[in-house]
Amino acid sequence: MDPVQIISDYIRFPSVSTDPSFQEGMIGAREFCANLLRSAGLAVEIVPTPLHPIVLGRRTGPKEWPHIVLYGHYDVQPAEPLNLWTTPAYEPTVRNGKIFGRGSADNKGPHAIGVIALANVLKRNPNLPLRVTVLIEGEEEIGSPSFPAFLDKYRDELAEADGVILSDTGSPSAEQITITTGLRGIMGCEIRLTGPKGDLHSGLHGGAVYNPIQALVELCASLHNADGSVNVPGFYDGVELPQPWEREELRKLPLDDAKYREFLKVDALYSQPNYTPLEAVRFGPTLEFNGIGGGYQGAGSKTIIPAQAFAKITCRLVPGQDEARVYALLKRTIEERVPKGVRCELVPKQGSNAYAVCPPDRPNTPADQNPVLANAFRAADAAIGKHFGKKPLYLREGGSVPIIGDIKARTGLDSLMIGLFLPDSNLHAPDENLDLALVTNGIKVYEELFEGIAGKRA
Amino acid sequence: MDPVQIISDYIRFPSVSTDPSFQEGMIGAREFCANLLRSAGLAVEIVPTPLHPIVLGRRTGPKEWPHIVLYGHYDVQPAEPLNLWTTPAYEPTVRNGKIFGRGSADNKGPHAIGVIALANVLKRNPNLPLRVTVLIEGEEEIGSPSFPAFLDKYRDELAEADGVILSDTGSPSAEQITITTGLRGIMGCEIRLTGPKGDLHSGLHGGAVYNPIQALVELCASLHNADGSVNVPGFYDGVELPQPWEREELRKLPLDDAKYREFLKVDALYSQPNYTPLEAVRFGPTLEFNGIGGGYQGAGSKTIIPAQAFAKITCRLVPGQDEARVYALLKRTIEERVPKGVRCELVPKQGSNAYAVCPPDRPNTPADQNPVLANAFRAADAAIGKHFGKKPLYLREGGSVPIIGDIKARTGLDSLMIGLFLPDSNLHAPDENLDLALVTNGIKVYEELFEGIAGKRA
Repeated sequence: MDPVQIISDYIRFPSVSTDPSFQEGMIGAREFCANLLRSAGLAVEIVPTPLHPIVLGRRTGPKEWPHIVLYGHYDVQPAEPLNLWTTPAYEPTVRNGKIFGRGSADNKGPHAIGVIALANVLKRNPNLPLRVTVLIEGEEEIGSPSFPAFLDKYRDELAEADGVILSDTGSPSAEQITITTGLRGIMGCEIRLTGPKGDLHSGLHGGAVYNPIQALVELCASLHNADGSVNVPGFYDGVELPQPWEREELRKLPLDDAKYREFLKVDALYSQPNYTPLEAVRFGPTLEFNGIGGGYQGAGSKTIIPAQAFAKITCRLVPGQDEARVYALLKRTIEERVPKGVRCELVPKQGSNAYAVCPPDRPNTPADQNPVLANAFRAADAAIGKHFGKKPLYLREGGSVPIIGDIKARTGLDSLMIGLFLPDSNLHAPDENLDLALVTNGIKVYEELFEGIAGKRA
Repeated sequence: MDPVQIISDYIRFPSVSTDPSFQEGMIGAREFCANLLRSAGLAVEIVPTPLHPIVLGRRTGPKEWPHIVLYGHYDVQPAEPLNLWTTPAYEPTVRNGKIFGRGSADNKGPHAIGVIALANVLKRNPNLPLRVTVLIEGEEEIGSPSFPAFLDKYRDELAEADGVILSDTGSPSAEQITITTGLRGIMGCEIRLTGPKGDLHSGLHGGAVYNPIQALVELCASLHNADGSVNVPGFYDGVELPQPWEREELRKLPLDDAKYREFLKVDALYSQPNYTPLEAVRFGPTLEFNGIGGGYQGAGSKTIIPAQAFAKITCRLVPGQDEARVYALLKRTIEERVPKGVRCELVPKQGSNAYAVCPPDRPNTPADQNPVLANAFRAADAAIGKHFGKKPLYLREGGSVPIIGDIKARTGLDSLMIGLFLPDSNLHAPDENLDLALVTNGIKVYEELFEGIAGKRA
């Protein structure tokens, strides 16, 4: 069957995991996915969870065969605002060499590419000495709440594998594929300050009360130093700077500060010690304010001293940092700095550690690197060079894919991440799309990758 | 008619001047006010303005009769947050000896007290030798933008009066009435910061972009020094400290720091140089944050670097400061401190200078004090002592009644301000209310005041 047809049929099931009214779409996408795995020759188990079941496919074999795990997710983001889609979100359409539809890039298309390639390879060589476990979950877009327990339950089976192939990262263009070698972790929390019993008249009481907004801005302003670094004592403890080869790899990207400023429409980039701006977004830790609020926000003015104010913060973390420790450091710092007259509550949000993997043949490649995974990296490198016309770049990415760290922490497995969406794929946005070049060439790359892992190539 | 009934009927018109959707409430309140003036025997003129007309009532007479101006406003603050009201904001309710409802204290109740007293006096003595001009405006809560032009237009008629009785100030308790001898000025503005072209993914771009919220909190935090003073160079130039008799008068208030803390429910008061906290709210200038906003404010988290953030600021000013100059100083300070990578827009809001009047018989009373106004002060002093059981205190108040300064600047008239709301009247807040003792005794005081000015008493 035509891969574009398969991906299109998959998109037609509106599998929005966050919205209970899409239950039917979730079931449809899950069954479609299970049948796709069966048609590739896998035995399928539907693993129940408290919310949306996980589709688990297996090709078993002798213990001496390499064993690789494929990860993807069949759930999608909500398609709203619907009126901004050129064609309806769940009626996939091909135009200008792209498939448009919710989930085309995130993540139905990319993981379908892997499964289709596996089917092709096994059809050509039914005896391929390769064990495969496919995990397609249905809760990625809501933070994978059931996934850690699933990993724990299947730990023995998974830990025995050689590595994971993950299809949830991007590349800068269809001509320049990226193999993602790391993702930042994340620590989120909300600061809530409370001052007087209620909003006060700023004329009657102004001058005698510590305004919670003043306390909040002073507190938040204290969290960065003048040089751009984060002013939370201990924050940088253990932070691992990028390897020289990583900085060099980044310089190969056709992007410089001037182009990046133009893309962002800012007249200057933010700078901080140890990293250029382009390095900072991939290799550096951050403390960002995602939202702030307090007092009167409507039109005109309201002369109050507000009773409350809040700020939402997330820190992006790099290898060497621990999200629970960073939260504890931030909590202590904030509690120490809250002025008298204001009460503070700190509410923790999601958290996950950074993840990084070192490709083979680098100055810092661990001596004990898993030979099957090293083989997979080499096979991917060769196949990408052959089918996309250019060798891949090996870059860490600034975003966070919390399950990667979970997989590593709970099973010990490292991941090979081939970027199969593009900057204009519109993830989480209207007109989400997947470039057909990624589908066609991606299938070829995955075919050679499976064969390479099985020992037929590379 | 029962005064409580009159005030309650008045409250039922939701006259929120800042919000165009309350147009009908504005019209209703204005017509109610006009009818109230007519029922007191005044000739009423509705004076159009670019926004909300002014209700002008007149009792004319021979030039040799004293001529007093009564000022009030029929517009109110928004009632939000509505869910914090015990009974609906525009459905007045009497409980525990108070009328609850938006506008009960600010300012429908207090100016209705004056008009009702005038009606009573004129009913008893239709030939009272007193000229009265009543001005009830509809834009006080949005900074009286049309009032200066109105004063200019009616300057000749108003300048010929002897003084103003203003009913928009408070007293510490129903047992201790205050005659307000000064009000702070106000300078308002909004800081708007813009960073990148749109909200950015904080993973993909975090670390390379100056987050507008970070820029905003750093900017706002720079506006105060560690000692609590305002860190805008030149801000304190010309500031006049209170007279010794004013500090002494304040010490007669049955209020200390501990009681004030308990009232506000804070564990510490804000302190700054030259003023105790209780002095600061009446005699000191401030810079307050009335609102702040930017980025994601909903439940949970959204990992963005927002494109924009804003803060609403007002400064309370004291005699010796000029609001236009303070705005210019703040503008220069902010523009100097905005970091590269972020664009800043400063939007000015309402502004007015502080006002102060010296009662008769004080060490600093001017030699040329107007005898009719001095007579009014003495009549009020006697009537308050008689009906409230205790002589009034003469204190400056921290709030701003911008029109007071405008009236002084444009007509030369000084004002007598009798405080007819209380600290727990919840001005600008949910459960706004007016103590019934103030209504009953206030009407008696105003009656004797009008008779005193007319020469029948004092």
